[in-house]
Amino acid sequence: MKDDRYEIRFGGSGGQGIILAAVIFAEAAVYEGYHVCQTQSYGPEARGGKSKAEVIISQSEIDYPKVIKMDLFLAMNQAALDAYFFDFKPNGILISDATFVEQLPTSRAFVLPFTRIARDDLGKEIVANIVALGAVGRLCDKVSMPALEKAVSAKVPAKFRELNVEALRAGAKAADTVDVSLLPRSIVSDEEAEV
Amino acid sequence: MKDDRYEIRFGGSGGQGIILAAVIFAEAAVYEGYHVCQTQSYGPEARGGKSKAEVIISQSEIDYPKVIKMDLFLAMNQAALDAYFFDFKPNGILISDATFVEQLPTSRAFVLPFTRIARDDLGKEIVANIVALGAVGRLCDKVSMPALEKAVSAKVPAKFRELNVEALRAGAKAADTVDVSLLPRSIVSDEEAEV
Repeated sequence: MKDDRYEIRFGGSGGQGIILAAVIFAEAAVYEGYHVCQTQSYGPEARGGKSKAEVIISQSEIDYPKVIKMDLFLAMNQAALDAYFFDFKPNGILISDATFVEQLPTSRAFVLPFTRIARDDLGKEIVANIVALGAVGRLCDKVSMPALEKAVSAKVPAKFRELNVEALRAGAKAADTVDVSLLPRSIVSDEEAEV
Repeated sequence: MKDDRYEIRFGGSGGQGIILAAVIFAEAAVYEGYHVCQTQSYGPEARGGKSKAEVIISQSEIDYPKVIKMDLFLAMNQAALDAYFFDFKPNGILISDATFVEQLPTSRAFVLPFTRIARDDLGKEIVANIVALGAVGRLCDKVSMPALEKAVSAKVPAKFRELNVEALRAGAKAADTVDVSLLPRSIVSDEEAEV
């Protein structure tokens, strides 16, 4: 059986809510029937504006719980992008925030205005992580929007549910403006890329 | 150098907030300068009333991010206790909730009324996880109460900060009624126990 392990890394500064985004994604993947591992690792550098969280999903049991090669990397700021860009699959996708990321290390990348959407369209910059999560959900094509909405609703206080579901939808809508199939593909063959 | 790896598992039903408790503990350990790995793994069984989250802390870099042998296990219900009790260190400590745990598989255990304290003393059963976290913090002796309070405050909405800090303190106070040094010790020597 082909290994269907799918690996996502979320990177950003401490205040950007990337752990919550990863936890919500993990929960949504559980609803979809996947085996899921979700981790965060912190060193002393966690206090320096960059942190990361990871989610592995698979149809079968997961042996190693951390990212080996990323299929998708959400980078909410430049420091996290620079620090955690290694381990990228040749045909992995980078999704980054337009407000806090300036330099892209790959052409297989989308820059979307998560923070601006959260601030200007939703009036709460703090939900930029959930806007980004909506885009991640749409672009990775592993979890459905209903599963993500249910997971968001389970993980945020009742009072903030509506705002967060709106944020999720705004992110999915932003992702609909881009097309993964139009990204330049790595010249590495798919077989090599699987290694 | 002696490996100072310290391993904690949190188990409970989905609604009991054990992931949040683990994330907050992990954050507090970062404040204390530790290297920290925090994970949750879900299989299809996650929908059946038991889930687990783990935190590894160490003074040095952490190679394997999941529990190998537990130093401390917080069990918030019987299903999680039964499912995740394996991998216990001979001198590990089990902390369990009086409301939802009836049978203890070890004498190195404390039963404390986290859910009752949350419900009756604080008026919100939903903070039982944070009450338990206060007891875990006090009994593991790896993170200070100020670090835990800071981490709780960073992870819950402003509106619920006071309640959650109160919950933490109530849990620590409950833990002060028991004494780890009075627990029966395993007859396995410390050297063997380290394996």
